[in-house]
Amino acid sequence: MTDRYPETLHCRTVARSRLFRVESVGLRFGNGVEVEYERLGAGSHGAVLVVPLNAAGEVLLIREYAAGTERYELGLPKGRVEGGEDPLEAANRELMEEVGFGAERLTSLRRLTLAPGYLSHHTEIILAQGLYERRLPGDEPEAIEVVPWPLAELEGLLGDPALSEARSIAALYLARDYLARTAAPAGE
Amino acid sequence: MTDRYPETLHCRTVARSRLFRVESVGLRFGNGVEVEYERLGAGSHGAVLVVPLNAAGEVLLIREYAAGTERYELGLPKGRVEGGEDPLEAANRELMEEVGFGAERLTSLRRLTLAPGYLSHHTEIILAQGLYERRLPGDEPEAIEVVPWPLAELEGLLGDPALSEARSIAALYLARDYLARTAAPAGE
Repeated sequence: MTDRYPETLHCRTVARSRLFRVESVGLRFGNGVEVEYERLGAGSHGAVLVVPLNAAGEVLLIREYAAGTERYELGLPKGRVEGGEDPLEAANRELMEEVGFGAERLTSLRRLTLAPGYLSHHTEIILAQGLYERRLPGDEPEAIEVVPWPLAELEGLLGDPALSEARSIAALYLARDYLARTAAPAGE
Repeated sequence: MTDRYPETLHCRTVARSRLFRVESVGLRFGNGVEVEYERLGAGSHGAVLVVPLNAAGEVLLIREYAAGTERYELGLPKGRVEGGEDPLEAANRELMEEVGFGAERLTSLRRLTLAPGYLSHHTEIILAQGLYERRLPGDEPEAIEVVPWPLAELEGLLGDPALSEARSIAALYLARDYLARTAAPAGE
């Protein structure tokens, strides 16, 4: 079943706003069944989400207002990859804009999707180590609060309902596993 | 900063399709800065994502076509909570529709968001144990492949790029942590 991809019968834009474009796509599956799906069209070079780890083994989380859930959310710095950037460059720029640090070492851990059924969006998870102070101006409407937390105490952090984003939670676990696997001293 | 929520100046629908509704929302932050955001409006009772664990300690993953990423994705069964259902009921129904099992014990582990900046969407992560065969008809266009995998070997599973969804990866880690914490024998 998985060897035979569905055939795309048509794909048209059915709604559009400044940021979003909704596509309606008609598919015919290998068994002949035809289905009409809606999805959000791709419009960017992807996104990055950064796990900044300082020399004390603390991950630097941020707290900022989220217009979707209408509350302050605790999570990891993230943003779009701009044209001409590679994901590691985008990660370092977002880190400087949102947290006020640059990183000497950036390691891509994994590519994640959000809702593959209706979003083409993907996010590269990037571990940032060897942090040094460096701030770039960002486009945030108010100052972002930075919240350091020891990565070794991840369970306690997960008890905070303000940390709700699946990407951030998956990234914290992935970073912890990666560090345990490579046996690199945290933050160095 | 986090004690003072931004004031909503206006909120209007700027695009709409069969499934999606895009809102433009104007916010005034505590420091006086005004910003216009776009977000996808809430239109459902939320979603559930199920971690089905059998008596052998295997998690039952599914492989199905995802119209957003245009490929077959490996992940956990999930779906919308229908009107009149609570999340545990929805989880058991989705499990019967997508995997062909019901669960004697359903435990809500955590509520996750996908992209809190522009999606109000939330997903309840539910551990399903005490599985018994029971199939309900679903609305999938083709048969879903069920892929059992030992939860104790999560690292190996994470090496498969077909498992990309942040929600599923976070849920697998959360289930493993929960089981270790409660020291309940897997699958019982």
